[in-house]
Amino acid sequence: MIDLSNISSLPPDGAHKHASKEHLKELREELFELQNVFYADGRFGLLIILQGMDASGKDGVCRHVMTAMNPMGVQVKSFKKPTELELQQDFLWRIYPHFPAKRMIQVFNRSYYEDILVPTVEATHSKAVIAQRYTLINAVEENLDLNNIHVLKFFLQISREEQAERIAERKTLPDKKWKYNHADEISDAKWKHYRQTYEQIINGCQDKPWHIIPADKRWYRNEQVAIIIRDHLKGLGLKYPA
Amino acid sequence: MIDLSNISSLPPDGAHKHASKEHLKELREELFELQNVFYADGRFGLLIILQGMDASGKDGVCRHVMTAMNPMGVQVKSFKKPTELELQQDFLWRIYPHFPAKRMIQVFNRSYYEDILVPTVEATHSKAVIAQRYTLINAVEENLDLNNIHVLKFFLQISREEQAERIAERKTLPDKKWKYNHADEISDAKWKHYRQTYEQIINGCQDKPWHIIPADKRWYRNEQVAIIIRDHLKGLGLKYPA
Repeated sequence: MIDLSNISSLPPDGAHKHASKEHLKELREELFELQNVFYADGRFGLLIILQGMDASGKDGVCRHVMTAMNPMGVQVKSFKKPTELELQQDFLWRIYPHFPAKRMIQVFNRSYYEDILVPTVEATHSKAVIAQRYTLINAVEENLDLNNIHVLKFFLQISREEQAERIAERKTLPDKKWKYNHADEISDAKWKHYRQTYEQIINGCQDKPWHIIPADKRWYRNEQVAIIIRDHLKGLGLKYPA
Repeated sequence: MIDLSNISSLPPDGAHKHASKEHLKELREELFELQNVFYADGRFGLLIILQGMDASGKDGVCRHVMTAMNPMGVQVKSFKKPTELELQQDFLWRIYPHFPAKRMIQVFNRSYYEDILVPTVEATHSKAVIAQRYTLINAVEENLDLNNIHVLKFFLQISREEQAERIAERKTLPDKKWKYNHADEISDAKWKHYRQTYEQIINGCQDKPWHIIPADKRWYRNEQVAIIIRDHLKGLGLKYPA
């Protein structure tokens, strides 16, 4: 069982900003090469799921890690609050068209996990509906995997204090202001409820395991996500077709 | 356990062609009214799945039953052999966008069940992949149901003899010729394998039960399908919003 309250949002002792940033440069070069052979190899697809509290750095990961790769083979889809039209459909309806084909790396910036998270915290759906979503999501991920579409799931672990600081920045910094949404400012009680629900999700959907990334420091977060993607791609035995 | 070899493809004693056809006219009027209030009511969606051997009458059901209803609220999607593009994706990728929204009646003329059927008979996929498709399909149908998208599944049961006759007609009748495909002519052994696989599918995906329709007589088949859809719609307690 993963207990999020016992997982630090800070880098471990011994991590250093400068070294991490230098390492990220190398990792980006590796990712650039690996994604090229991943595309050419053609046997696999890859789905990368980014989840985390508001301001935990999902956009930052897209900006600093995913940009290392050729966008011809890498797409990011951000899932916002469902529209009226989307709410007339089953929750996976807006998701399914974006699952990756073979050769492609697809990033979900938020995902179908929001369809468990928000209904649980806001109590908009019955327990039976929510329980079935766990079952279905596990079945979908297993099915993708058997079809050689691998799933890498990241939870960006940020502290309440760091989150507050980032949201405050959004109110003042000219290049961050556009991201400010008063709905991001939630009570301590609700924050706790979101974290508990994330914990349930992470433990309830562990068939394809979650990577919990300490995300208070952007430089450490970026490096760690890049390492995990690099290691996954490296493990595939990719090769250029003869 | 449903044993298809024990289910007749012929109407029961006492069924009469003329009476059935007259009844269908009434049923069509009922369906016309019911679909209108279904649309206005807005709480539900309906997915109707038509499966059956080649020439078992799936197109005929669309033509003689579904036409009773306003096409503004009724859509038919026919799933053919997957294309090269579709094969690069998970098997539900081409399906999901066509699941009905609330208010809508969506007919699948063939469906995701083909993605168990054909891979099993043609042995194109591993047992693990096929087993996971059963799991996933059951989870999807349960999820749709919990979202008020109901699923009605029909298997059109036709005899080998009647099928052979209809395929022979396709070779000669001018208005049927366009439907002829030499791939429909399969050996007795393969026919049996298809029927066994259908039996596995029907028994393995019974959470939302199958309706087995004796389909050697078109008039009986149409009447029975119309009755089941009518009864389902009637059971919903539909009403025009105030």
